[in-house]
Amino acid sequence: MQIPFEQMQDVLYKLFLKYKFSEEKAKIMSRVFTENTLSGVNSHGINRVPLFINYVENGLVKVDAEAEKVETFGSIERWDGNFGPGIINATKCTSRAIELAKLHGIGMVALRNTNHWMRGGTYGWQAADAGCISILFTNTQPNMPPCGGKDSRIGNNPFIVSIPREECHIVLDMAISQFAFGKINEYKLRGEKLPCNGGWDDNNELSDDPEKILSNERGLPIGYWKGSALSIILDMLATLLSAGDSTYKIGLKERETGVSQVYLCIYPEIFNDRTLREKLLNEIIDYTHDVEPMHPGDKTYYPGERTLQTRTRNLKEGISVNDEVWQKVMDLLDL
Amino acid sequence: MQIPFEQMQDVLYKLFLKYKFSEEKAKIMSRVFTENTLSGVNSHGINRVPLFINYVENGLVKVDAEAEKVETFGSIERWDGNFGPGIINATKCTSRAIELAKLHGIGMVALRNTNHWMRGGTYGWQAADAGCISILFTNTQPNMPPCGGKDSRIGNNPFIVSIPREECHIVLDMAISQFAFGKINEYKLRGEKLPCNGGWDDNNELSDDPEKILSNERGLPIGYWKGSALSIILDMLATLLSAGDSTYKIGLKERETGVSQVYLCIYPEIFNDRTLREKLLNEIIDYTHDVEPMHPGDKTYYPGERTLQTRTRNLKEGISVNDEVWQKVMDLLDL
Repeated sequence: MQIPFEQMQDVLYKLFLKYKFSEEKAKIMSRVFTENTLSGVNSHGINRVPLFINYVENGLVKVDAEAEKVETFGSIERWDGNFGPGIINATKCTSRAIELAKLHGIGMVALRNTNHWMRGGTYGWQAADAGCISILFTNTQPNMPPCGGKDSRIGNNPFIVSIPREECHIVLDMAISQFAFGKINEYKLRGEKLPCNGGWDDNNELSDDPEKILSNERGLPIGYWKGSALSIILDMLATLLSAGDSTYKIGLKERETGVSQVYLCIYPEIFNDRTLREKLLNEIIDYTHDVEPMHPGDKTYYPGERTLQTRTRNLKEGISVNDEVWQKVMDLLDL
Repeated sequence: MQIPFEQMQDVLYKLFLKYKFSEEKAKIMSRVFTENTLSGVNSHGINRVPLFINYVENGLVKVDAEAEKVETFGSIERWDGNFGPGIINATKCTSRAIELAKLHGIGMVALRNTNHWMRGGTYGWQAADAGCISILFTNTQPNMPPCGGKDSRIGNNPFIVSIPREECHIVLDMAISQFAFGKINEYKLRGEKLPCNGGWDDNNELSDDPEKILSNERGLPIGYWKGSALSIILDMLATLLSAGDSTYKIGLKERETGVSQVYLCIYPEIFNDRTLREKLLNEIIDYTHDVEPMHPGDKTYYPGERTLQTRTRNLKEGISVNDEVWQKVMDLLDL
């Protein structure tokens, strides 16, 4: 089914008020969940709302908690999320990193004890809308084996880089896993193989069979040993900069909570050359756009380009939502 | 053959003096080329010296050029490398980013018009030795097709992250390509296939055959579309922050020169909790070390661990060098 943006946002706003969030928080969260869905990331938009409410009901997301600054030096701050809603904490820390960047050229906030920020790209777009470059990452529960290992002991640790641009921001939003488990599940439901290996089967062999990978949830890092090392070092950075929980510690808990995150912003307007920067970006984009396709029909996109296309289409036609998911959300509202 | 550290450094020092570098520059360059070889990265150590000298002879590396600061705001600086030797420029900009980090908690230097820094990890170790976390990257000439494209239009853009640690620093040093072409060539010389796909063959199919990949030099980014996007956005950052040349512009030149780089350092000592940070790092290391191997004999390492092992072995036994390469260097010195 198709749901207009305003309707989805309105329903979610009422739902979050019902669960005792303040009007301000309900407003931000309903906007972000709706925008994530508008951008085609239903897994971290409307589809995730029932699980989020379940976290609220179980006290894992604390409705009244506020993120607070605990330490500061120069252009760096450490914040404690106090287990509040991840979207609220992330929005606040992104805003603070933007402020620091505008003061010092570059600024960084490290946040501990927060919850899932849903779509990390949201905060990349937020920074870019404010004229900032951003580099953001979070750790997660263990969901991939480290290179050479059998059990999942490293996280897929989403990594975001955004660059403001007049026509359309550049936003890279990627987990360090080759595929999200939600994406692997979509292939399974369609009865298709993955386009490349995406994880390990029960016999410890690499596999492109969604069913075999999902049976033990051992995902493959991008670039094998390289993604494994990248995941480990991002976890180290988030953990030690925030003095928060690592993937190891998160994995000791029954459910994923209290993750650690880094928000780094740079304000390029300190250099008085916006026209030059736009030109440099557009040259890179044109060069990759104009490449001859590897196979007929292939097209090369810059990071964030397809998100804008999806948004535009969904704004016009309404946001595609699974009927069952929508019914679940309506049921939660009616309780 | 095996060459002791001191001997290699001494030979290179004399060679660089012969080519009119100052004593100070010859000292730094001979140390870095030797240490890179000591660390087992011969491709960016001794093996690269003849090509470096060729660049000097052709005026692509300017012997007397000095990197200079061109713009500054708060914790950010823009430098121009003036086409000086990449090792000297990189060492200087890393030092400056360390200074900025110690002043402001975080600091960044963007450098344009520089030359190949050889092994990027060198500067990650430099920052870690000074007690700093570092995030460093460079763009390169085009050597991989962007996702969906046929021609090489994106760079393998090496990306370095380092974290200081008492026992042994953590240093990730990875190009965005699955394999370096030098590494692919080693497989070819041994008559072996790659352990996974590493590039495209003449029929535009992914291949693990070193010979087929080397025939057209189209490398595979880590994680396919993900590495492609990561490469593009790193190039954008390095280019616009330094107002320097992009991979596109570098590709227009006959040979790779005038690359753009970013040096970002964070000084974790601003947080008065070194004992806690060491504990957090060691927990992550132990957790990944203790994993049951996927296949008998597999072992999981943290980033930088094997480099230390190689260094220790080479310091004791002498540095392994290809006879022909050593002879080439000796010939250059005798001229």
